[in-house]
Parts: sequence; structure tokens; C-alpha cells
Amino acid sequence: MKLSLVIAESALELVPEEIRLSPAVVNDAKRRERDPSKILLDRSLHHAAMVRLKEDYKRGRPDIVFMTLLSVTGTPLYEEGSVKVYVHTRGDVVLEIAERTRLPKSYFRFRNLVEKHLSEGSSNELIRVRELNIRELLRKVIKPDFVAGLSTQGKSETLEDLAETLVGRTNPCVVIGGFPHGHFSAGTLAVLDELVRIHSRALDAHVVASRAVYEVEKRLMRADA
Amino acid sequence: MKLSLVIAESALELVPEEIRLSPAVVNDAKRRERDPSKILLDRSLHHAAMVRLKEDYKRGRPDIVFMTLLSVTGTPLYEEGSVKVYVHTRGDVVLEIAERTRLPKSYFRFRNLVEKHLSEGSSNELIRVRELNIRELLRKVIKPDFVAGLSTQGKSETLEDLAETLVGRTNPCVVIGGFPHGHFSAGTLAVLDELVRIHSRALDAHVVASRAVYEVEKRLMRADA
Repeated sequence: MKLSLVIAESALELVPEEIRLSPAVVNDAKRRERDPSKILLDRSLHHAAMVRLKEDYKRGRPDIVFMTLLSVTGTPLYEEGSVKVYVHTRGDVVLEIAERTRLPKSYFRFRNLVEKHLSEGSSNELIRVRELNIRELLRKVIKPDFVAGLSTQGKSETLEDLAETLVGRTNPCVVIGGFPHGHFSAGTLAVLDELVRIHSRALDAHVVASRAVYEVEKRLMRADA
Repeated sequence: MKLSLVIAESALELVPEEIRLSPAVVNDAKRRERDPSKILLDRSLHHAAMVRLKEDYKRGRPDIVFMTLLSVTGTPLYEEGSVKVYVHTRGDVVLEIAERTRLPKSYFRFRNLVEKHLSEGSSNELIRVRELNIRELLRKVIKPDFVAGLSTQGKSETLEDLAETLVGRTNPCVVIGGFPHGHFSAGTLAVLDELVRIHSRALDAHVVASRAVYEVEKRLMRADA
């Protein structure tokens, strides 16, 4: 079994054109000696400019992807090559993270890495960049035999029971939202076989991801033992 | 039951005097318009200067504390007030994090917050700063009825079994290393009732912390149900 984990509709993008001339963005770019078109949109730095953006409350949170990736790539299940991670952004760009890769643990280095890949559209042995919507990602790349989305809008199920289902498949896929507020779009909901709620309140993506990987890992190790 | 979690001997400190005039530090401080004595030592930024420091391989990793704090404070168990977190640094400063607090998810904001507390030695309703070694922290502040340290040098036990022991106590304490390499010091080992190994290889502190909290949370919720 190989688990695919998709961080979907992630609040990860370069600063969009509409606000590249705003003081918050220009100052940040200047301090970093970068072009404003090549830096990540970040609410903690560009808040003042972001009010002008459509759906601004769901955008500019690269920390969500960073935390979620680290919480998964630090696990034994990932280290042994049984988890593959895909970051799908709200702009339909997919970052495919190579298996068994150790990503930078420093946020500065992570940011530089992602900015390089997004602004150049370039791939290397660590990260492959492609323009794909979530339907294309699942149909053409992952080709899963079961897809579970995690959302407070789903039917209540324990993560233990979900993990039991996942390890019974060959190529299961778990979809987690990479945004701070709100719910999956219709496009994401349409690709799911099941929508599962593991807790009554919304949990941070990194908490959901690390728990899902842990429960699958425990079941696989028990099966191995 | 209230779980105390101690991130011990953490690689968190302000830039020490010996390297405050080094180019790597001066440039970083200048870019941030700060005094070099008031910025966090960070290997990803000050690597070139750090070779001159004693035990440099165990120092300058504020990302470990950041990730571990977020992985704990995002959990339902923490949100309901059943976990208290203490950051003990290798310089014997303790940051006591208030219960049910949401810490900054942006690394920039977290860094600013910690720099302020460490350079001023100041406390507020979010973080209390005290000079305490780990023995004093346990004896005078936490007063636990059971202390388990997690280390690959310990005796093998599953986290489920450890969690079972923890929830049977009133004031259990779990100690996790907040450093990148090596093992607990003799001073830390001396305060532990048990030293437990939950995995054959060393795991990142945030992985250990999030799993420990999750297993305790599951047991408490089952007991509640």
C-alpha cells in the first residue's frame, strides 16, 4: 500500500499582479531584494494589501503548507517511502514532493525553494511542478482506488476506522484542505469517494495530516509485526 | 488529569556574545534593523559564525521549538486546557506557555515574540519567562506525579501503553528533547521516572509531541464517552 496525501486548494501563491505595487508588498520585496512577482503571498506580511483580493480570507497562508509538509515528512511512514505528498494550490498548480525527501525545516529556506519553483515553473528531483486541477491530479497522476476527503462537513468517523479502510486498499488517497477557513469547493467534493469528519471542530491541516499518517502507520506496522 | 509537556534543553537562545560581531550575524541584524544581541541564534542564517561555538551542533534551531509548540497547541486536548507546555532551553531559561493559547502560526511573528521575551526577560499573559534548570522546573513549578522522558536510549514501549500510564495519573509530565542531535544531559536524565523509546530511530520533536498528545487525547475521550 502507498498512501497519497493531497493538500488541496492550498493558500499558496506568488503575490498576484493586482497588489504588486502596494506598499506592503514593495517594502517586503525590497527588504528581500526580490522582484514583487517572485515572492509568496503571506498574510502575516501583506495583510494591508490583501483586502483588495477576491476571497482574501482563504489566501496567503504558506505556513499551512509548510507545517503540514513537515508534519508528514518527519514520520517513519514517509521515511520508509509509503506516503507521497502533493500540494495542490487554489490556482491549480501542483507541487509533487519526491518520496522520502527531507524538506528544509527552516521556513526561510522552504520559502526560497517554493518561490523558485513557482516563479520559474521549474521541476527538479525534489519537487515537480505542474498545472493541474484536482480532478486531473487524481485521474492522470495519482489514479487512486479510494479517495477520502477530511472536512467538518463530512459524516462522523474515527480516524482509526478510516485508517482501517485505507490500509485495505492498494493506492488510497486522503485529501486535506490547505486553507485557513471555509470548506472544499464543489470541484474538490466531486472527486471524493467519501467525506469524513474526524472531529466536531475544524482542526489545523497539520494536525489532521499527522494523525492520519500516524494511524495508517500503526496499522501497517501491526500488520508487519 | 493535566498533561505537562516539557521541551527540554531546547536549541533556543539569543545570539551569544562570542559571535555578535561576525558578518553572518551583523548582516542579519542589519537587514532586520535589530541589535545583534536581540535576535535568535539560527543555524539556517548564522551557520558560518556558529562553528566557533561550543556544542554548536546542538544549538541555533528555533524551528524545533516553533514546530513542536504548533503541533501541540493545535490539538483538541490542548484547546480544552488539558495540556500545559514548557520550553526549557539549554541556557536554563523556561518559557511557560499559558493554557489554551493560540501562538502565532507565522514563523516571523513567533520569532519576534520569543526575541522580545528572551531579550527583555519579560512575562505577559501569553508567555512567562523564568530562569530555572529542569530540576527546578519540575520540583518547584510542575510538581508532577510521574515523569517520562522520550529518547532512543530508553526502554522500548508503545506510545499507547505510555499514554495508558499517563492518563492514570493526576499530573503526569512528558519530557521531549528540543535539540537536533545527541541525547538528554545527565541533569535531565536525573529527573525522569522512566526513559521510554517509542521508535527505533530518532524522531523529530514535533512528531513525538503530536503523537504523545494524540494518544493521551484518545484515551481521555474514550473515558469521557
